[in-house]
Amino acid sequence: MANEDQFKKVISHAKEYGYVFQSSEIYDGLSAVYDYAQNGAELKKNIRDYWWKAMVQMHDNIVGIDASIFMHPTTWKASGHVDAFNDPLIDNKDSKKRYRADVLVEDYCAKIESKIEKEIKKAQKRFGDAFNKDEFVSTNPRVLGYQEQINTILKRLGQSLEKEDLADVRALIEGLEIACPLSGSREWTEVKQFNLMFGTKLGASAEHAMDLYLRPETAQGIFVNFLNVQKTGRMKIPFGIAQTGKAFRNEIVARQFIFRMREFEQMEMQFFIKPGTQMDWFKHWKEERMKWHLSLGMGEDNYRFHDHEKLAHYADAATDIEFKFPFGFKELEGIHSRTDFDLKQHEEFSGKKLQYFDHEDNASYTPYVLETSIGLDRMFLAVFANSLVEEELDNNTTRTVLKLPAVLAPTKAAILPLVKKDGLPEIAQQIVDDLKWDFNVTYDEKDAVGRRYRRQDANGTPFCITVDHDTLEDNTVTIRHRDTMEQKRVKIEDLRDIIKAEVDVKHWLKKMQ
Amino acid sequence: MANEDQFKKVISHAKEYGYVFQSSEIYDGLSAVYDYAQNGAELKKNIRDYWWKAMVQMHDNIVGIDASIFMHPTTWKASGHVDAFNDPLIDNKDSKKRYRADVLVEDYCAKIESKIEKEIKKAQKRFGDAFNKDEFVSTNPRVLGYQEQINTILKRLGQSLEKEDLADVRALIEGLEIACPLSGSREWTEVKQFNLMFGTKLGASAEHAMDLYLRPETAQGIFVNFLNVQKTGRMKIPFGIAQTGKAFRNEIVARQFIFRMREFEQMEMQFFIKPGTQMDWFKHWKEERMKWHLSLGMGEDNYRFHDHEKLAHYADAATDIEFKFPFGFKELEGIHSRTDFDLKQHEEFSGKKLQYFDHEDNASYTPYVLETSIGLDRMFLAVFANSLVEEELDNNTTRTVLKLPAVLAPTKAAILPLVKKDGLPEIAQQIVDDLKWDFNVTYDEKDAVGRRYRRQDANGTPFCITVDHDTLEDNTVTIRHRDTMEQKRVKIEDLRDIIKAEVDVKHWLKKMQ
Repeated sequence: MANEDQFKKVISHAKEYGYVFQSSEIYDGLSAVYDYAQNGAELKKNIRDYWWKAMVQMHDNIVGIDASIFMHPTTWKASGHVDAFNDPLIDNKDSKKRYRADVLVEDYCAKIESKIEKEIKKAQKRFGDAFNKDEFVSTNPRVLGYQEQINTILKRLGQSLEKEDLADVRALIEGLEIACPLSGSREWTEVKQFNLMFGTKLGASAEHAMDLYLRPETAQGIFVNFLNVQKTGRMKIPFGIAQTGKAFRNEIVARQFIFRMREFEQMEMQFFIKPGTQMDWFKHWKEERMKWHLSLGMGEDNYRFHDHEKLAHYADAATDIEFKFPFGFKELEGIHSRTDFDLKQHEEFSGKKLQYFDHEDNASYTPYVLETSIGLDRMFLAVFANSLVEEELDNNTTRTVLKLPAVLAPTKAAILPLVKKDGLPEIAQQIVDDLKWDFNVTYDEKDAVGRRYRRQDANGTPFCITVDHDTLEDNTVTIRHRDTMEQKRVKIEDLRDIIKAEVDVKHWLKKMQ
Repeated sequence: MANEDQFKKVISHAKEYGYVFQSSEIYDGLSAVYDYAQNGAELKKNIRDYWWKAMVQMHDNIVGIDASIFMHPTTWKASGHVDAFNDPLIDNKDSKKRYRADVLVEDYCAKIESKIEKEIKKAQKRFGDAFNKDEFVSTNPRVLGYQEQINTILKRLGQSLEKEDLADVRALIEGLEIACPLSGSREWTEVKQFNLMFGTKLGASAEHAMDLYLRPETAQGIFVNFLNVQKTGRMKIPFGIAQTGKAFRNEIVARQFIFRMREFEQMEMQFFIKPGTQMDWFKHWKEERMKWHLSLGMGEDNYRFHDHEKLAHYADAATDIEFKFPFGFKELEGIHSRTDFDLKQHEEFSGKKLQYFDHEDNASYTPYVLETSIGLDRMFLAVFANSLVEEELDNNTTRTVLKLPAVLAPTKAAILPLVKKDGLPEIAQQIVDDLKWDFNVTYDEKDAVGRRYRRQDANGTPFCITVDHDTLEDNTVTIRHRDTMEQKRVKIEDLRDIIKAEVDVKHWLKKMQ
């Protein structure tokens, strides 16, 4: 419940401080689509740049590309998305409303889960301090029964989905007597697979129009360009191709703010390697990517690896880096050993060889691929939610502060004249004009300086620089640090170096080493 | 013809050196869609960043946003795109092939034009040195007749299109006995308007699916967010909102490489101003944007303003900044005074007030808008084509050099060990590891050093740094400048500052002042 409150606070703060707006809000919005506002656009850009520098600029054997969203439709046959990128959907006959069949069942289980929670609360009240939760849930017959029920249902659901036995998924829904949340009716249609790709048509003529898809992932743009990049870039294995860009999925149940959107952005790197070396590289990139996350200083305890037990058909090893979102640990980044599945599929469907000639081995082979794939919007949410803090201050007041890693903060410094007279605004403006060549800075003269500090705290600005009457005497200003609220007197001419030391990408990337 | 050759060279160089690939090339490509390859992705990113810094970072009263490609469909009713964003199309009844009616007529005129060219060539041959082209075309009756024909046809076409008299466009095609280039048939259907927006469907249920469009321009993402940005960002008029992002148009005739694509990227800024001040701001932004272009040093003569005589229904002033592409002067950027048309339309269609309260005037009004809109892909083509040069050298050889402005070059320096032994590669690698924190640099040890210089010239790398045996003695290296081919001996420890002085964004932006 505390987490739910925290999440609501995140969403409203994101709007109030110009980070994320609902898309087309004046038209009452578009479900599961969001716009990044003036601060959000900068934060998103800074995250993207931080990733790009770490992956591309810092590695002589990784290059970046920027492939189009539109791709030849055969790409998606080869990748398997046309045949197997589906959600199982079911319609209620009375309300005509459509649902994801698996989500209906999962929601049913969540209700049983909440019964368990109720039993726990009741017992807690009854036993007070003597209550031992672990003992209670492992011995109470009612709780054990509920748990058994949940396990049985989810196991059957999992098996049916894996075998694509959609009739059994429907039988499960009917057997559990699940009702439509809207109409209360228990009359359901068949379960059908629904493809998650958005379609469109290229060209004007009905006869010559080509069915296109909006890419559901950016990875395929790398695979189809693999050989061109390798040859024109004279790349030697092992080497990587990185890319950031939009992808689109027609999610039926899209929720949790920007965590799962219909239009989203990925940051992916495909690392091409010699077959047989994939487990070494898997280990390498797991470590490397975790170092990147930790370099931002958002707390080691907020991350964990979650190795996949069941592997996708193209993978021989896979792990998620999970992050502790306000709604619990969830996938933030995936690291997958994709074998030669994708290149082989494209070889088959295009009829072109996608092989690499290894001069050391004097042999050609289809490379294996190690993928790192992170959702930019999820990363944004992780950074933003984790940074939003309510702090109790000494004087019994609280402050809201957005403790963004300084390297990612949209505005690096706010320049504040203490009062709007005596030439102080002109000096402050002069400092803005001087610093803006190097950083995003802003000028703020409205309200008392204490209020301006609070506003910049909530905005995530790492430094406030105040120009006062002493400045007129000795060319010094006060610099205040957002996180410590410490204030120091420094020379105007030293400002650039002081700020740079804390916001420079180089300084942050060095923490990876 | 020389220009056509030059353009072909541009396209093949772009592929050969990893700048631009055809999209999904292994599947034989997708018409009018391109992928940016390893060098192209960096060049594109650098142009985008250079624009963003100049527009957003340098202006305290301009902020950036990043709105989604999907927008509420009513947006496009309000903007006029649903009703009026059309091309006139005609089908040939025999070949079933579809054409843009206006292009059929224009191609017909181009054929007459080539007859004129033939006459000129014939006369040139006959009269030799005595031939005066200007006199010939203004007196020769045959040429005058052809010219008259062209003028009459184009005038009628223009009038019919303006009146939306599509029957007359068809009558013109039939009257000229234009044949289908494919079948030779002269049997044509009616001319119909075809909307250029790509459509797709959001949501799974047929009943609940929503017809969406891929945005045909990024500007509307700014207009629908205007009030949210103004309020949460506490912006005071005049202020601007900038955005870069993808847009999509289902062009029937898409050609000239990346000049006109179906998927492209825009860099737009909408400046919100007080009604009545638009002509001052129009002048201001014309000058300001031209300064930005000129700061890149690509030659003043390559730019010109082209003021619009006929204005779009939403504009009260408009100009293009045209650039001299290999195929002639064409629009690179548009500067438009859009009045309050867009905000008023969104007020009407959303039922929400989109007004600004002006504290100085103590009055509310719907702001006027001054737009600057540049195609990122066109800017890429302008920079790339203009930079590609064949130079005659003193020793009677030629070199191909890509003289990209250093601030935009994908790789800032190549580090070359003179030979692959004696510890030189290790020192070169050490320099790479040191410089990569600040710049994109690359290591290259293959082939003789002269060949490596040529390769980096063609690649657009501003500096080559060569490590030789003297380096072992005195820690100096040779730095070679791409454009002048001058070589200097410098200390390794000075490299960072030498490179920085020439590639730093700050240094280039200062040329705008």
